[in-house]
Amino acid sequence: MSFRIEHDTMGEVQVPADKYWGAQTERSRNNFKIGPEGSMPKEIIHAFGYLKKAAALANTELGVLSADKADLIAKACDEIIAGDLDDQFPLVIWQTGSGTQSNMNGNEVIANRAHVINGGALADDKKVLHPNDDVNKSQSSNDTYPTAMHIAAYKLTVENTIPGLEQLRNALAKKVEEFSGITKTGRTHFMDATPLTLGQEFSGYVQQIDNSIRAIKNALVMVAELALGGTAVGTGLNTPKGYDVLVAQKIADLTGLPFVTAPNKFEALAAHDAMVELSGALKRTAVALMKVANDVRMLSSGPRCGIGEIVIPDNEPGSSIMPGKVNPTQPEALTMVCAQVIGNDVAVSVGGMSGHFELNVFKPLIAANVLQSARLIGDACVSFTVKCAEGITANLPEIEKHLQNSLMLVTALNPHVGYENAAKIAKKAHKENKTLKAAAVELGLLTNEQFDEWVRPEDMVGSLK
Amino acid sequence: MSFRIEHDTMGEVQVPADKYWGAQTERSRNNFKIGPEGSMPKEIIHAFGYLKKAAALANTELGVLSADKADLIAKACDEIIAGDLDDQFPLVIWQTGSGTQSNMNGNEVIANRAHVINGGALADDKKVLHPNDDVNKSQSSNDTYPTAMHIAAYKLTVENTIPGLEQLRNALAKKVEEFSGITKTGRTHFMDATPLTLGQEFSGYVQQIDNSIRAIKNALVMVAELALGGTAVGTGLNTPKGYDVLVAQKIADLTGLPFVTAPNKFEALAAHDAMVELSGALKRTAVALMKVANDVRMLSSGPRCGIGEIVIPDNEPGSSIMPGKVNPTQPEALTMVCAQVIGNDVAVSVGGMSGHFELNVFKPLIAANVLQSARLIGDACVSFTVKCAEGITANLPEIEKHLQNSLMLVTALNPHVGYENAAKIAKKAHKENKTLKAAAVELGLLTNEQFDEWVRPEDMVGSLK
Amino acid sequence: MSFRIEHDTMGEVQVPADKYWGAQTERSRNNFKIGPEGSMPKEIIHAFGYLKKAAALANTELGVLSADKADLIAKACDEIIAGDLDDQFPLVIWQTGSGTQSNMNGNEVIANRAHVINGGALADDKKVLHPNDDVNKSQSSNDTYPTAMHIAAYKLTVENTIPGLEQLRNALAKKVEEFSGITKTGRTHFMDATPLTLGQEFSGYVQQIDNSIRAIKNALVMVAELALGGTAVGTGLNTPKGYDVLVAQKIADLTGLPFVTAPNKFEALAAHDAMVELSGALKRTAVALMKVANDVRMLSSGPRCGIGEIVIPDNEPGSSIMPGKVNPTQPEALTMVCAQVIGNDVAVSVGGMSGHFELNVFKPLIAANVLQSARLIGDACVSFTVKCAEGITANLPEIEKHLQNSLMLVTALNPHVGYENAAKIAKKAHKENKTLKAAAVELGLLTNEQFDEWVRPEDMVGSLK
Amino acid sequence: MSFRIEHDTMGEVQVPADKYWGAQTERSRNNFKIGPEGSMPKEIIHAFGYLKKAAALANTELGVLSADKADLIAKACDEIIAGDLDDQFPLVIWQTGSGTQSNMNGNEVIANRAHVINGGALADDKKVLHPNDDVNKSQSSNDTYPTAMHIAAYKLTVENTIPGLEQLRNALAKKVEEFSGITKTGRTHFMDATPLTLGQEFSGYVQQIDNSIRAIKNALVMVAELALGGTAVGTGLNTPKGYDVLVAQKIADLTGLPFVTAPNKFEALAAHDAMVELSGALKRTAVALMKVANDVRMLSSGPRCGIGEIVIPDNEPGSSIMPGKVNPTQPEALTMVCAQVIGNDVAVSVGGMSGHFELNVFKPLIAANVLQSARLIGDACVSFTVKCAEGITANLPEIEKHLQNSLMLVTALNPHVGYENAAKIAKKAHKENKTLKAAAVELGLLTNEQFDEWVRPEDMVGSLK
Repeated sequence: MSFRIEHDTMGEVQVPADKYWGAQTERSRNNFKIGPEGSMPKEIIHAFGYLKKAAALANTELGVLSADKADLIAKACDEIIAGDLDDQFPLVIWQTGSGTQSNMNGNEVIANRAHVINGGALADDKKVLHPNDDVNKSQSSNDTYPTAMHIAAYKLTVENTIPGLEQLRNALAKKVEEFSGITKTGRTHFMDATPLTLGQEFSGYVQQIDNSIRAIKNALVMVAELALGGTAVGTGLNTPKGYDVLVAQKIADLTGLPFVTAPNKFEALAAHDAMVELSGALKRTAVALMKVANDVRMLSSGPRCGIGEIVIPDNEPGSSIMPGKVNPTQPEALTMVCAQVIGNDVAVSVGGMSGHFELNVFKPLIAANVLQSARLIGDACVSFTVKCAEGITANLPEIEKHLQNSLMLVTALNPHVGYENAAKIAKKAHKENKTLKAAAVELGLLTNEQFDEWVRPEDMVGSLK
Repeated sequence: MSFRIEHDTMGEVQVPADKYWGAQTERSRNNFKIGPEGSMPKEIIHAFGYLKKAAALANTELGVLSADKADLIAKACDEIIAGDLDDQFPLVIWQTGSGTQSNMNGNEVIANRAHVINGGALADDKKVLHPNDDVNKSQSSNDTYPTAMHIAAYKLTVENTIPGLEQLRNALAKKVEEFSGITKTGRTHFMDATPLTLGQEFSGYVQQIDNSIRAIKNALVMVAELALGGTAVGTGLNTPKGYDVLVAQKIADLTGLPFVTAPNKFEALAAHDAMVELSGALKRTAVALMKVANDVRMLSSGPRCGIGEIVIPDNEPGSSIMPGKVNPTQPEALTMVCAQVIGNDVAVSVGGMSGHFELNVFKPLIAANVLQSARLIGDACVSFTVKCAEGITANLPEIEKHLQNSLMLVTALNPHVGYENAAKIAKKAHKENKTLKAAAVELGLLTNEQFDEWVRPEDMVGSLK
Repeated sequence: MSFRIEHDTMGEVQVPADKYWGAQTERSRNNFKIGPEGSMPKEIIHAFGYLKKAAALANTELGVLSADKADLIAKACDEIIAGDLDDQFPLVIWQTGSGTQSNMNGNEVIANRAHVINGGALADDKKVLHPNDDVNKSQSSNDTYPTAMHIAAYKLTVENTIPGLEQLRNALAKKVEEFSGITKTGRTHFMDATPLTLGQEFSGYVQQIDNSIRAIKNALVMVAELALGGTAVGTGLNTPKGYDVLVAQKIADLTGLPFVTAPNKFEALAAHDAMVELSGALKRTAVALMKVANDVRMLSSGPRCGIGEIVIPDNEPGSSIMPGKVNPTQPEALTMVCAQVIGNDVAVSVGGMSGHFELNVFKPLIAANVLQSARLIGDACVSFTVKCAEGITANLPEIEKHLQNSLMLVTALNPHVGYENAAKIAKKAHKENKTLKAAAVELGLLTNEQFDEWVRPEDMVGSLK
Repeated sequence: MSFRIEHDTMGEVQVPADKYWGAQTERSRNNFKIGPEGSMPKEIIHAFGYLKKAAALANTELGVLSADKADLIAKACDEIIAGDLDDQFPLVIWQTGSGTQSNMNGNEVIANRAHVINGGALADDKKVLHPNDDVNKSQSSNDTYPTAMHIAAYKLTVENTIPGLEQLRNALAKKVEEFSGITKTGRTHFMDATPLTLGQEFSGYVQQIDNSIRAIKNALVMVAELALGGTAVGTGLNTPKGYDVLVAQKIADLTGLPFVTAPNKFEALAAHDAMVELSGALKRTAVALMKVANDVRMLSSGPRCGIGEIVIPDNEPGSSIMPGKVNPTQPEALTMVCAQVIGNDVAVSVGGMSGHFELNVFKPLIAANVLQSARLIGDACVSFTVKCAEGITANLPEIEKHLQNSLMLVTALNPHVGYENAAKIAKKAHKENKTLKAAAVELGLLTNEQFDEWVRPEDMVGSLK
C-alpha cells in the first residue's frame, strides 16, 4: 500500500495515499482497534453531512466563511449524504466518548474531498480548506456529535421505526375487522376464561402499537432540539451571533424535519436525556411487541398438540431433523429484537447517567444503541407484518371446540345464581368431566332452558366493542 | 390466638377472630410466605378504597346495587382510604400475578367491616354483604387490580414525585441566578476546558429536571386511563351498560384526578405498557438526577485535594475513623436511589413484556417497583434539596485559581491565530509550565496587549445565556 | 415524647429518651427521610452484631482493649444478633453510601446498651464505652459496612437461598423418577416435536437448579473474604498487627462460616465485585427458575382449552369473578420474584461500577438488593415446592392424546426413507388431516407393518437417559 | 445476476448461481431483512466448521457415514474454519430463534462446496452429499446451534478476552511495583482521606482483574459442555450409540479445548444458563473495569484544574476546537465498552429466561451478545493497556502537594488524643485555613514534636502491604 504524509498538531502521520481522511482519523484507526472496523453507524456519518453543510451555509450567511469555501464544503457534504463516501469513515464506536475523532474524520474527508473537487490533488501540500478552521468553523465535536446523534436518530425513527410500526398496526387492524365475528375462549393465567372475539383480542395489540407510536413521538420532541451552536462547553464560544438558531433552521431545511436549536446548550452537551428518553420509548415499544409476538406464536401453537386457534404462514422448513415441521419464525425474530432493544436501553441508561461537568463522553455508545434499536424495530415490524401478520387466519374448528368446552362460560350465571353456586357448577363439571349444563341441572340450580338462555358465548363478548 | 371460621368456594378456613379479612386472604397468607408480611404497597390498598367505593356508587346509580349496600361499602372504603385499616391487609407482593388475592382481601375486609359498621359482629354467620356478589359487583380482579395500580401510581407521582422534582428544580434555579456572575473553568472529559459561569453550569441541571418532569407528565396521560369495566377478559361481562365510563368518572371525582376509562380494555388488562412507560420516565429522571448529583459531589470534592469549587452543607460527621471528615452524603443517597430506579425499570420491563393472551400476571411486581421508584425519587429530591442544594455556595478563591490557570483559554485565540498556532501556544505553556501569555509572546504569535484584549474569560461565556 | 441530649463532634442532638441510639443516628434519621423508616436490612444489623463482637475480642487479644470493655460489647452484640434490639436501628438504606451512619448506629446502640447492662442509665453524662474509641476501635465504616454486607449475604445465601433451591431440586428430582415411564410429545418453538418422557423433561429442570447452586457457591468463595482490617482506605491504619487475620477468624468462629480476611483490602473497600458476582449468580438462578416456572404453568394450562399435560394443586379460588377457576399462582409468584431479581441485578451493577478511588459509596444499595434477591429466591422456592411442585401429577389421557397425534413422530423415519420423503408424509398427513401411517402408506413409501415397527414413540426417547 | 434453481421440502428457490448456499438459506435471506446482511457472528460460522467436521468423523467412526463422504465434509469444513467461505453466510441474527437457518446454511454450503471439491458443478442436479441426510446426520439445529454457541464463546473467551485481561493485569501489576514507594492522599466519597501509596491504589485494580478472570474461568466450566448428540429434543433420536461422547471428544481434539458432552441434553437445548452465566461473568468484569478506567481518568484529570496525580499518554489531539487539549480517550473507549457489556447482559438474561418446553429460541440473540461482549472486553483491554496503562506515570509534585495538605492525616492522632479531640483539630485547621500541626498545638492537645512523631504519612500506609 502506498501512503502520503498528513499532519496535525501532534505531528506527521502516514495515511493511505488514496483515502480522503487525514492525520487524526489515521491516529484513531491505530489507537482504537476495538471490534470490527468502521462500526460507527452510517446514519451518524450521513448526519454529519447535513450538519457540516448547514454550518457552512450559516457561517457564510453570518459573514465568517467565504461563499466559495461554503460551496466546496456543501458539495463534499452532498456526497457524504448520498452515501458515496461511506468507505472514507473507518472509525469505530469505541473511540473517544465525545466522538471527536469521527467529527475530525468528517472534517478531514470534507476538506480533502473538497480540495479534489476543486481540482487539487490529495498529495498537495496546501489545501483549499482547513479541517478545523474552515470545515469545523463555529463548531466543536462537543456540539456536532450530539447534533449528528439527534439528526440520525430522528431521521431513522421517522423513516424506519414509525413506518414499520404503522405497517404492523394497520395489518393487525385489518385482522380486527376480519375476526370481529369469531367468538373464542379467553385465557387468563394461561387458564380458560370467559369468551371474547378474536377481533377483540387483536384490538388490544393495535392499541398497544398505537400507544407505542405515541410514546415515540413524545420522545422525538426533545430529539428535535439540537446542540449545535454550543461549541466546546455550551457557551457558544467562537460562534457568530444568531448562529445557533440559524444553523438549526438550515438543518431543518436540508432534512425536511422540524429541528430547532436546543433551549439550553449546557444540558445539550452534558446530558443526553433526549436520547435516553427515545431509547426508553423504543424499549416500551419492545415490551409491547414482545406481548404481541408471544401471543401470535402461542395462539398458533400445535398443529395438533397446542392451542392452534390461528394459523400463520409457512415460510420455510422449520427443522433440519424433523421433516415437515413449521415454526413461528417471524415472531421469534421479533422477540429476539425486543430482547436486544431492552438490553440496549440499559446500555444507553448507563451511558446517559455518566456525563460529568460540561460533557457526556458516552456519545458514540448512546448513538449506536439507539440507532440499532430504531433500525431493528422498524425492520422487524415490516418483516413480521409481511411474512406473518398479514397472513394470519383463524382456525375455526379449534376455536369452536375450545369455546364450547370452556368451563368459564359459567361466569354468565353469576347474576342469576350467585358466585358461590356458579362455582359449585364449574367444580362439579370439572370433577366429573361433564358439561356445565349437565352439572347445573343435576345440582338443581337451573333448568336446561334457563341454561340455554343465560349462557350464550356470543352474548358474553358484547358489553364493550 | 382465637379464631373464627370463614369459608369460600373451596371450604372452611380458620381466620384470626379479630381480623376483618376472610377465607381467601387467610389462604393467601399461608400459601405465600415470601419476604416480609404485608409487603403489598399501602398505596395500592388505599387505591382499592377509592375504586371499591366508586364501583359501589356506579352500581347503585345504574340500578344493580341497593343504595343501602353502597352506603355501607362507601363507609368501609373511607376508612381504607384514611389508612385506618392498613393492618387488615397482610398479603405480600409475591402472590398470584393478577393481584386477585389482594382484591379479595379488599372485598373481604369491606364486607366484614361494613357488617360491623352496620351493627353486626364478625362472628355472625350471615353478613349484610357478600364479598364477591356485592363488593366485587361489576368487577374482576383483572380490572380492579390494574385500576388500583393506575390510581396509586398517578396519585403518588403527582403528590410526591413531581413536587419533589419541582422543589429541587426551583432550588437549583435560584442558584442559577445567584451564580450567574461567577466565571469558572469548564471541564470536558474531566479535563480543563473553556470557561462558563457557575450559573450556566447549574442551568443545565434545571433544564434536565424540567425535561424529566415533562416526560413524566407525558407518561401520566396513559396512566390516567383505567381498566375498570373490562372485568374478566376485557369484554365487560356482568357490568351494566355505561358502567365503565361512569365508574372512571366517580374515581376522578373522588380523587380529584383526571381519570378516564381506557379506550381498549383488552389492552388495559393484558398489557401494562402505561406503567412500563411511567417507569421509563422515572428511569430517565434517575439518569438525569445521577448527572446532577455526581456533578455536585465532584464540584465539592476536597476540601484540599479535590476540585472544591462549591461548598455543600455539613450535615453530620462523615467518618467513624477520620475525625472532622465531611462527606457529600445527600448526593450519595440520591445516586443510590437513581441506581435503584434504573434497576426497578428492568424489573418492570421484564414483567411488562410477560403478559399472555387476556392478562398480564406480573401486576403486583410492576406496581411495587413503579411505586417504589416514584416514592424514592420524590423523597430523595426533597432531602437533597433541603439538606444540600439550597445550601450550596461558591468557593470563589478556588474557582478563580482554576480559571486563571486553565490552558484552554487559548481557544479564544482560534479566530486570531488559527487552531494550529493556538495549539502550539497551549502545548508550550503546558510543557514549560508557563502562562499562556508568556508562551504566546515567546512564540511571536501576538503581543502582550493583544493577548489581554483577546483572552478575557468573562467574554468567553457570553454568546449564549 | 421525652428526649435526652446526646452529642457528637458536631454538637448536641435531642434523642428520644428511651432509645439506645445516639447523636449520629438521630442526625441521620432527620437528614434522610427517604422511603419507609428502618429500611436498612435486618440481616445487616445482625451482621454488625457479629463483627463488633469479633472486633472487640480481637482487640482484647491483641492488647488494645480491656477485657471488661470487650465483655460488655460482646453482651450487647449478642442481643443484636438475637434480634432483640432490632427496633434500635431506625435508619434507611438511602443514607451515606458508605453506610457510616448505620455503623455509628451500631456503635452508639452497643455503647449505650452496654452502659445499661453495666448498671448505668441512658441519661448518664459519662458512659462506660465510647462509640468511636471503644466500640469502633480498629475499625472504620469503610471496612465494617462491607464486612457486614458479606456476613449478611453469605449467611442468608447458605441458610435460605441454597436450602430453598435444594428443596425444589429434590422435589423435582422425585418427579423425574415418578415420571420416567411417561412418554409424551416434545415441543420446540411451541410446536409439536419428537417425543420424550415427562421425567426427561423434568430432568432438565433439575440440571438447571443444580447448575444454579453451583454458580452461587462459586460466587460465595469471594463473598467469604472480609474487608475488616482495612479501616479507612485499605491500609489498616490504627489497627494492631495481625488484626485483620484474627478478626476474620473470630467472625468465622462466631458464625460457623468460612470467612477469611480479604487478600487485598484496597479492592475490598473500593469495589464490591464479590457482591456483584453473587448478584449475577442469583440473577442466573432467576433466569433458570423463570424457565422452570413458565413450563409448569404452560404444561398445566387448561383445564380444557390448553395443554393440560400436568395437574398442579388447587390452593385457592383463582378468580373473583369466574367461579371455580383455578390458576397457577405459585409459578406466578416465582416468576415475579425472578423478574425482581433480574432488575435488582442491574441496580447492583450500576452501584458496583460506581466506586471511585478508595471507596465504593453505593454500599447500602448493593447490600439491600442482593439480600432481597437472596431472600426472595429462597422463600419463593420453598413456597413453590411445598404448594406446587410436590403436588404435580401427570394427566395421562391428555399426554397420550397429544403423543398419538403428533406429526413429528415422522422423524423416526428419516434413517429409513430420508428427510425429504419423511417431510412429504408429514405434510400430507397435516394437509389431509390424516394419521402419519395412512399418509405414509398412501404415498407408497412404506407398509403398515414397517410403520408400526419403525415409529414407536417409546423407542424414540431412549438414546439418552 | 444469474441464478440456479435449488429446492427444499417446500419447493424450488432461485439462488445466485455462484453461491454455495441453497434453498433454505435463500429463503431466510428473503424472509428476514432485519438489520445489515450477514450479521450472524463469524465466530459462530467457524464453530459450525468444527462441529460439522467432528460430526462427520464421529458418524464414520460409528459406522453411519461413509469415509468418503466424511472426508469431503471435512475438507469443506476446513475452508469454513479458515474463514475462506465467510461470504457464503449471508444470514442475520434476527431469524428463527433456534438458528435453524444458519445450521442449514452450513449444511448447504458444505454439501455444495464438497460437491465442487469432488469435481462436480454447482449446477449439477444430483450432488454427492445431501445437506440434511449427510451433512446434518445425527444432528438437529437444536443441538448444533447451541454447540456452535459454546464452541465460539469458549474459543473467543480464551483467545481474546482472557489474554486481553491478563495483558492489562500485568501492565497494572508493573505499576504496583513502580509506584510502591509513592505515598499519596487517599480519597473516599471524593473527599480527602488518609494516605496510601499509589502502588496500593493500583493493587486494588490488579485484584479486581484477577477476580474477574477467575469468575470468567468458573463460567467457562459449563460452557465446555456441549449439547451435540441431543438432536431434536434432547433424547438423541437418530444418533448412533456413543455418539454424544465421541463427537464432543472430536471437537475437543480439533479445537484443542476441553469440551465434553453435556450431562443433560434436555437442559442443554431448552436453557442457555451457561451462556447467561458467562455473560454475567463478563458483566461483572465490565463493572470492575469501569471502576479502574474511571479512576485512571479522574486521577489524570487536569492538567491544571483537576486532580492530576498521574499522567497518561497523549495519543491524539483531544478537541476540534480547543487547541492543545488532551483527553483520556482510552478510558473513555473502555468505559463505553463496559456500558455495552452491561446492557448486553440484560439482553442475554431476557433471552435466557424465555425458553419454553424443549427449546430456547433466543439462541442467535444470546450468541451475538455474549460474543460481542467477549470481543469488546478483550480488544478494549489491549487497547487500553498498550495506549494508556503502560504509559502511566506519577505526577510527583501534585501528589506531594495533596498529601501535605490533607487534613485527614489527623486520623493518626486518634490513638493518642481520641476521636473527638482529633476532630477538633481537623475542624479548626479547616475553618481557619491552617495546618493540622498549628491547629493541634494551638488547641494545646499536643506539642510540635509529638505531632511530627505521630503524623507521618509514610507510616500510615504500612499496616497492610
